[in-house]
Amino acid sequence: MDMSRFRFDGSKKCKLQDIPTDSRDAADDKKDILKKYEKNLIRLGELQHTFYSYRKEGLVIVLQAMDAAGKDSLIRHVASSMNPQGVSVCCLKRPSPEELEHDYLWRINKALPRRGEITIYNRSYYEDIVTADVKHLMKTYPMADRIININEDKFISKRIDQVNHFEEYLYENSYRIIKIFLHLSKETQKKRLLERIDLKEKNWKFEKADLDERKVFDTYLDKYENVINKTATEESPWFVIPADDKWYTRYIFSEILINTFKKIGASPPTLSAEETDNLQTYRDLLENE
Amino acid sequence: MDMSRFRFDGSKKCKLQDIPTDSRDAADDKKDILKKYEKNLIRLGELQHTFYSYRKEGLVIVLQAMDAAGKDSLIRHVASSMNPQGVSVCCLKRPSPEELEHDYLWRINKALPRRGEITIYNRSYYEDIVTADVKHLMKTYPMADRIININEDKFISKRIDQVNHFEEYLYENSYRIIKIFLHLSKETQKKRLLERIDLKEKNWKFEKADLDERKVFDTYLDKYENVINKTATEESPWFVIPADDKWYTRYIFSEILINTFKKIGASPPTLSAEETDNLQTYRDLLENE
Repeated sequence: MDMSRFRFDGSKKCKLQDIPTDSRDAADDKKDILKKYEKNLIRLGELQHTFYSYRKEGLVIVLQAMDAAGKDSLIRHVASSMNPQGVSVCCLKRPSPEELEHDYLWRINKALPRRGEITIYNRSYYEDIVTADVKHLMKTYPMADRIININEDKFISKRIDQVNHFEEYLYENSYRIIKIFLHLSKETQKKRLLERIDLKEKNWKFEKADLDERKVFDTYLDKYENVINKTATEESPWFVIPADDKWYTRYIFSEILINTFKKIGASPPTLSAEETDNLQTYRDLLENE
Repeated sequence: MDMSRFRFDGSKKCKLQDIPTDSRDAADDKKDILKKYEKNLIRLGELQHTFYSYRKEGLVIVLQAMDAAGKDSLIRHVASSMNPQGVSVCCLKRPSPEELEHDYLWRINKALPRRGEITIYNRSYYEDIVTADVKHLMKTYPMADRIININEDKFISKRIDQVNHFEEYLYENSYRIIKIFLHLSKETQKKRLLERIDLKEKNWKFEKADLDERKVFDTYLDKYENVINKTATEESPWFVIPADDKWYTRYIFSEILINTFKKIGASPPTLSAEETDNLQTYRDLLENE
């Protein structure tokens, strides 16, 4: 399946309302896709193993979405195909007091992977743009007047510039960044939130605040669309993935990961002639001990 | 004394060979300056106390210099006037394997102060520009070919851009950055290195590598001059301070710090009318317990 339709690298405009949230484009192929997905998981394990031994690039995966879009279960399903030794999940909640007293990238930077490893950000610095914008958080920040007394749109647009520079910096320091937006319909969100209320084992996931967020669902979509268009680049592209049907979401995410690994083109480290010779010496030492 | 002659904010060119390394400009005032310095230390303690209570800006101090320029003793003397609870010194040595596996700002970011606090970087990310350049470290980095197979000058100039963006980001997130270059003559360096050999209690500071570095003293100066000119801005200025006479260096550094605090203009937090009323209630509770 052609994944380019989900990819935004600045060369085409992203209009969220024109992008399906469900699997309508693939409904006929579901059986095939499920089979492919199983193969993809095995392939992902292999590719990540090579990537881990290569150790010359780090991989940053940003996951953003509306509530109940399935971020957690997507991570659980797809990331479980990879060796956890090389994969960290950084789950960002509401900033702690210590985090708020620092710059907003501080907690992001601390969790950056070593090269050869992967960090999946379950929510990210994009919250400091989108949520900060929707909820008008600027004035609440412990920052000097010169920062928080400026026009709010300007404040947000400065953050967008900062994030573009940050991602450019990462790319230029041998990191790859992919950014995923799980695209969920308001109806599916309702269905999933109702499940969280109706199913005892899902109760712990329900938060009253989700209902308040739902009231500004469309505002969030507008803000996401804006930030996606302003931060989509060839080097750190956005992928807008339909999120109403989880089997489809998982498959697309696994394809994107495989393509990313292929692009990195990692290969196991090769030894120099001298190192290869040394190996023979060590072999003899072991054999004759 | 007018400190603007030591300040570089991009409005005038820095030519290191035209800037004295010693105290010749102030030799007649030495007695006065020593008195002023003592007063400055007390004033610094007060200003930092207010800055700490204000908590709306963080202060980043970058210290760069040739070997034996007196970074350590400068920190010991001047920083000791401030409450260590609000001041951290981040002393950056040769990067550890873990640090090398990350982007070069990773260890810098981890040590960023909370707002209200100060981090003094004893050596900084400027090593990743100047030393990386002089020692041709690019090819040794564990990074993908797309990064380390480019022209070395381009690699360094990209880092300069990255650092400009980083400092701009900090400023826009309610940090102040001042960058100090301790300007030492080659003769004074020789004298101090000889002391490290001749005085038993200073032996531990001597490193054979310092002699190798000395051979490229002038190359370092060229590289520093270039990077100072390319990263000096109004928001994160460089200060080139004569370093041959320690009493003079300390005095100038204390003046720069005082001016920086004044510019920040911190004031103790003021209470709202409601909070002031509450205080009265708490007073009554305590009195009547």
